Amino acid sequence: MNIVKTTDSDFEALYRRITGRGRVFDEELWKVVKGIVEDVARRGDEALFDYTRRFDGHILTAQTVAVSEGELEEAAARVEGPDLAILQQAAQRIEAFHRHQIAESWTVSEKPGSILGQRIIPLERVGIYAPGGSASYPSTVLMAAIPARLAGVEELFLVNPSRDGKISPLIAAAAKLCGIRRIFKIGGAQAVAALAYGTEAIPRVDKIVGPGNAYVAAAKKMVFGQVSIDMIAGPSEILVIADSSAQPSLVAADLLSQAEHDEMASAVLLTPDDVLARAVSAELERQLENLPRRAIAQRSLEAFGAILVTENLDEAVAVANRFAPEHLELMVKDPWNLLEGIRHAGAVFLGSYTPEAVGDYIAGPNHVLPTGGTARFSSALGVYDFVKRISVLSLSREVLEEYGPQAARFAHLEGLDAHGKSISLRLAGKNP
Amino acid sequence: MNIVKTTDSDFEALYRRITGRGRVFDEELWKVVKGIVEDVARRGDEALFDYTRRFDGHILTAQTVAVSEGELEEAAARVEGPDLAILQQAAQRIEAFHRHQIAESWTVSEKPGSILGQRIIPLERVGIYAPGGSASYPSTVLMAAIPARLAGVEELFLVNPSRDGKISPLIAAAAKLCGIRRIFKIGGAQAVAALAYGTEAIPRVDKIVGPGNAYVAAAKKMVFGQVSIDMIAGPSEILVIADSSAQPSLVAADLLSQAEHDEMASAVLLTPDDVLARAVSAELERQLENLPRRAIAQRSLEAFGAILVTENLDEAVAVANRFAPEHLELMVKDPWNLLEGIRHAGAVFLGSYTPEAVGDYIAGPNHVLPTGGTARFSSALGVYDFVKRISVLSLSREVLEEYGPQAARFAHLEGLDAHGKSISLRLAGKNP
Repeated sequence: MNIVKTTDSDFEALYRRITGRGRVFDEELWKVVKGIVEDVARRGDEALFDYTRRFDGHILTAQTVAVSEGELEEAAARVEGPDLAILQQAAQRIEAFHRHQIAESWTVSEKPGSILGQRIIPLERVGIYAPGGSASYPSTVLMAAIPARLAGVEELFLVNPSRDGKISPLIAAAAKLCGIRRIFKIGGAQAVAALAYGTEAIPRVDKIVGPGNAYVAAAKKMVFGQVSIDMIAGPSEILVIADSSAQPSLVAADLLSQAEHDEMASAVLLTPDDVLARAVSAELERQLENLPRRAIAQRSLEAFGAILVTENLDEAVAVANRFAPEHLELMVKDPWNLLEGIRHAGAVFLGSYTPEAVGDYIAGPNHVLPTGGTARFSSALGVYDFVKRISVLSLSREVLEEYGPQAARFAHLEGLDAHGKSISLRLAGKNP
Repeated sequence: MNIVKTTDSDFEALYRRITGRGRVFDEELWKVVKGIVEDVARRGDEALFDYTRRFDGHILTAQTVAVSEGELEEAAARVEGPDLAILQQAAQRIEAFHRHQIAESWTVSEKPGSILGQRIIPLERVGIYAPGGSASYPSTVLMAAIPARLAGVEELFLVNPSRDGKISPLIAAAAKLCGIRRIFKIGGAQAVAALAYGTEAIPRVDKIVGPGNAYVAAAKKMVFGQVSIDMIAGPSEILVIADSSAQPSLVAADLLSQAEHDEMASAVLLTPDDVLARAVSAELERQLENLPRRAIAQRSLEAFGAILVTENLDEAVAVANRFAPEHLELMVKDPWNLLEGIRHAGAVFLGSYTPEAVGDYIAGPNHVLPTGGTARFSSALGVYDFVKRISVLSLSREVLEEYGPQAARFAHLEGLDAHGKSISLRLAGKNP
């Protein structure tokens, strides 16, 4: 892989190419998705089943769109015992981590007669999108459903497209682990539209979470406002900051673990050590040889991979903040010290024994993370995504006597006199 | 105003009319906004100043778009002492309330060698949209800026359209109180686009918050993903649940305080007491007479107002949850008991001495609230809107030895073998 210095004249172009990838919705794709979303909103099941036949290639009916109890049990039973144990272990650790995100309702009385606070209430209905296609991603089911359950969401639905109208054993097992009983064999923009507007067979939800392809991302953006969404997921990415203490083979392996995701994925190394830079470049070539998904990883590295040599570690941190990467590994001598300077990243993996892959699956933190620089303003999926807050205010007559004239004057200054009247009437009136 | 029973055959149509208002973006408006947003993204200041001249009617240059230190001081100085004191009081109470929303970073070590956690980091740059036009809304500046400051946001920008290129004294005073020094005399979709993409004169921000008209709302939805936004604000609304203990004059006054906002506002009463229903209807007629904004309030009540008679208070709560109103007043004998059943509302005002108007200004809670039923899934603006969370993972070799094989197997099940390799290499290798 090419090695570029951050002071080189072509660095900015490379930075823009990597951070700009997959960012703009294609106008054509947007039109197609708009047609699908509006059609499903209008025609309901009929449209949903039409698109499923066209895009996923199997025929659904109102009777078969939901996975039956029997199908669920049968599919889940096909997961081998040791694999089921791994799912269970992962679920336990994910739950243990996310428990720390549970927030409590609060009230405060700063003076007699005044009670103010916020009630934290779980969302009522949530739809989880688990991508299908060439592989199945049971990990995504765990990562979305466990925080939702901890938040107290009562009605949890799963949509998961399939090629043959059958649910994958791993998805079934993960869903069972999380107590999800209502699963629909749908996907794509049509599934997002069905969840957002409801159809005869699919319930309307309050929030849709989970990653998907470009069609799913566009549909989520389109229905945002009608429902809540977690984020608009882009292609995955890793950025590694390494110094001379890092092993080139491990750095290369971690870059590849991201590059194999898909051709739009990005893997970037930042290091002040040009000896390490060259060694990692050589290791990448070597390790690519034996990779089952070699073709994908290679194209991803060529288009959106980079080995960047910085002046020093401070500059590496500054450049990392500009990237605001989804995954950031600190393979340096003192990673905790470096962490202090990190302002923008989805998740940070410290030291040589915390490869991203372990975080993706079973360490506990969520792997649904902000991509494409959106870590500047968004966070890993968490319990906080599945609650909302209701403000609560209760004032006594005495407190209203103190606050009321101020509020009425403030309202008057903003030209809203009925606001003031609603206060003055109370202060003038007799005790009801 | 008409009195309708929830069992009447026309109730559902009325419900749909009220909850559906202002929900769908007009196709024409969307096209206009798209043109403006793309033009500002492409041509920067030139486009921004063109649209400002066309829509706001004054001429800006790179030198005059920002409010100067002198302009700010001069405008703020024109606010009378007592009014400034009210702003200060409001700011203090808003700050006291929002302090309770500050969340702390955390780490946890559930076993030796494993450190997991989340760092809570303030957003770097935030843009506040304060509407202008016929009136100025200093309260919005306080409600957006104070939680942002408490979150630790360093760079806070304010945009506020004006008719004459001058900043309003109240806005200037509110901005000064919140320590905002960079204010731009822009508004509309063009201001949202400028903040989202940055221009020569306007910095690109990470999040845009604050209410605006339909153009602003459409522009915010359009740039969502490029930046974060707080919510897509629709027309304002109040729902009052009252029983026979409520005073008709107060219920009417509170309905009017909302109806006067604009013609798209909605004011709804739910009561099981049809004597109260008739009394409130009569009071509305009476109080409308003397209202400066009578024409607006009357049109709002006719189009989107309702007095609904329910079977009992339980049904009133159920119907209120279906509305998921921005503001909900409980003017009943035991409001705390009723509160238990409320699942969906932006803010709840308990008892006869907590009119919405006092909450809008100075009680402390935020008045930027979810509208149009979005209280099903969103919350009042708060400190939590101005932070993001970075996940942190640090594992020792021993912990990786325990987790690694599970993670590698999990990755293999999902068809991602390079993920497994990044783990197995570490476990095979020597200590680096």
